[in-house]
Amino acid sequence: MGEFELIERIRRKLPQAGSRVRLGSGDDAAISVPGGATATSVDALIDGVHFRREWCSPAQIGAKALAAALSDLAAMGAEPGEAYVVLGVPTDLDEDGCVELLDGMAALAEESGTTLAGGDVTRAPALTLAVTVVGHAGDAAAFVARSGARPGDALVVTGELGGAAAGLLLLAGPEQARSPFVDPGQTNDERARGLIGRQLEPRPRLAAGQALAAAGATAMIDLSDGLGGDAGHVARASGAGLRIDAGALPIQAGVAEVAATAGRDPLELATGGGEDYELLAALPPDRLEAAAAGVERQGTRVTRIGEVVAGEGVEIRLPDGGLLPPAGFDQLG
Amino acid sequence: MGEFELIERIRRKLPQAGSRVRLGSGDDAAISVPGGATATSVDALIDGVHFRREWCSPAQIGAKALAAALSDLAAMGAEPGEAYVVLGVPTDLDEDGCVELLDGMAALAEESGTTLAGGDVTRAPALTLAVTVVGHAGDAAAFVARSGARPGDALVVTGELGGAAAGLLLLAGPEQARSPFVDPGQTNDERARGLIGRQLEPRPRLAAGQALAAAGATAMIDLSDGLGGDAGHVARASGAGLRIDAGALPIQAGVAEVAATAGRDPLELATGGGEDYELLAALPPDRLEAAAAGVERQGTRVTRIGEVVAGEGVEIRLPDGGLLPPAGFDQLG
Repeated sequence: MGEFELIERIRRKLPQAGSRVRLGSGDDAAISVPGGATATSVDALIDGVHFRREWCSPAQIGAKALAAALSDLAAMGAEPGEAYVVLGVPTDLDEDGCVELLDGMAALAEESGTTLAGGDVTRAPALTLAVTVVGHAGDAAAFVARSGARPGDALVVTGELGGAAAGLLLLAGPEQARSPFVDPGQTNDERARGLIGRQLEPRPRLAAGQALAAAGATAMIDLSDGLGGDAGHVARASGAGLRIDAGALPIQAGVAEVAATAGRDPLELATGGGEDYELLAALPPDRLEAAAAGVERQGTRVTRIGEVVAGEGVEIRLPDGGLLPPAGFDQLG
Repeated sequence: MGEFELIERIRRKLPQAGSRVRLGSGDDAAISVPGGATATSVDALIDGVHFRREWCSPAQIGAKALAAALSDLAAMGAEPGEAYVVLGVPTDLDEDGCVELLDGMAALAEESGTTLAGGDVTRAPALTLAVTVVGHAGDAAAFVARSGARPGDALVVTGELGGAAAGLLLLAGPEQARSPFVDPGQTNDERARGLIGRQLEPRPRLAAGQALAAAGATAMIDLSDGLGGDAGHVARASGAGLRIDAGALPIQAGVAEVAATAGRDPLELATGGGEDYELLAALPPDRLEAAAAGVERQGTRVTRIGEVVAGEGVEIRLPDGGLLPPAGFDQLG
């Protein structure tokens, strides 16, 4: 495979560049005129660490790498702008496989309004993707960091939790985890497909993030490591405590069944599983209604799951008054 | 190694953020207020493909990864701004090795005025670095692309060529290549240390690139693949031909000796070797004097090596009137 030929094949297929991009892929650097403020984040996905190639298509891998990076922009309330991609290609992925991977990424780029503005293709011992994304806002104060949660704020999450972890159990867990669904890879069971889709085809909550920012969110983070751990980041950055009501968590359909057959607690999947790429946000209670309406206009819902309190750390309270132990869910890698 | 502990160790050691950076490493994304226009480039370095760990220290690897990325900004005439780093860590690099690597990178960041504004640390099968750099200018037109070379323009290069390829021969070539210098890794021979330094500790020509842009360069590229190949990129992008006088090339001291003992032509190392990270620029002849003066003020020199002509492709003319065959030099990877 010639690197230059591959790059040419890819470049011809890229959707039209966004209006900020004055010079796209193909020179020493891409030229952009950002306007106001930018939010920039970088995320890597490596075969055997973050995914396994036997579970997913090249197109799914390409889209997931971009989705994981864009999810960080969603958590800032940023408008997505440009992406810069390193693709490290192992000897057993041919040029068609690379193009399929970048097609998958380009489809999500188009869907999300992101310009693939540059990149670097190289050999690598394992399939490696590193995606840098740049998002935009009118000024720096419009972005939502992790550090602004204040006692009295309400805590909300978008969408539903636990699906990605349950999907991972269906793909890779012990045989008995799969028993509620016959042959989940091929199944017509809608719940199983939904769970596996959450693991293999996550979508960043970009519009919901912008709606929450506009509604006055004081702190926000995307749930990539799991609610427990990610809530901990918000608590530390904000210098406050987060109290979460486990009974209020919006758990995805099918998670309970997969958890039961795998001998797990569904709350463990919903709070420790990660990779749901939903958003956790804090906001003053009087902004809740506007936030819910704004997010719903984007086709997602928010659920109030707790509150910010004086103090530190994260407590996840069970319906019986006990506390969920802070144990993590065993993730791949 | 805990990822969060490592990141905390690194973050405490970072130099102060540049004035454009409003929120640095540690949130979902870094926040920046760019001002005018940005140039963004991404570059990956992987053990076994772009370097070998047995040749170089972690600090040299970290600095080289940033240098290679910044060299693309130099070729745009950009002022360096921010860098975002993916570090993929194999099991045989411990936390101290990671910190040493990022110390090396941070030292070059400080030297060059670059802010390490964000990153991602992950496991990887081989040491992997992917560096995205953002450079700045007042407006998009101030950047120099590859595409503006016009017939009649003069061609110049900064600094000296062939050193990185000769250094690679000293490190990795056949035994006889090393014979002019006894034990080159430990030698006191200044030329040998100079050549190995070009391979292991390249420095991006950022100030020279800004001086060439200010002097009116019409096209510019950094010599990462080798003069022959990189000149070809300028020719194609500009829709013009490049005629280079081989006798005029500024070849680094010691390259001739290494080439002779390795049975190579020094011109082959100077035009096909790559990784010198010097700049090739086209500019109107009446801008040559201003360019030379501007680059010299930055401690580098420019050498006129040829001209832009109507037509296409690259010709490298030998002193006897013949043409250098367009063969490449065998690079690692």
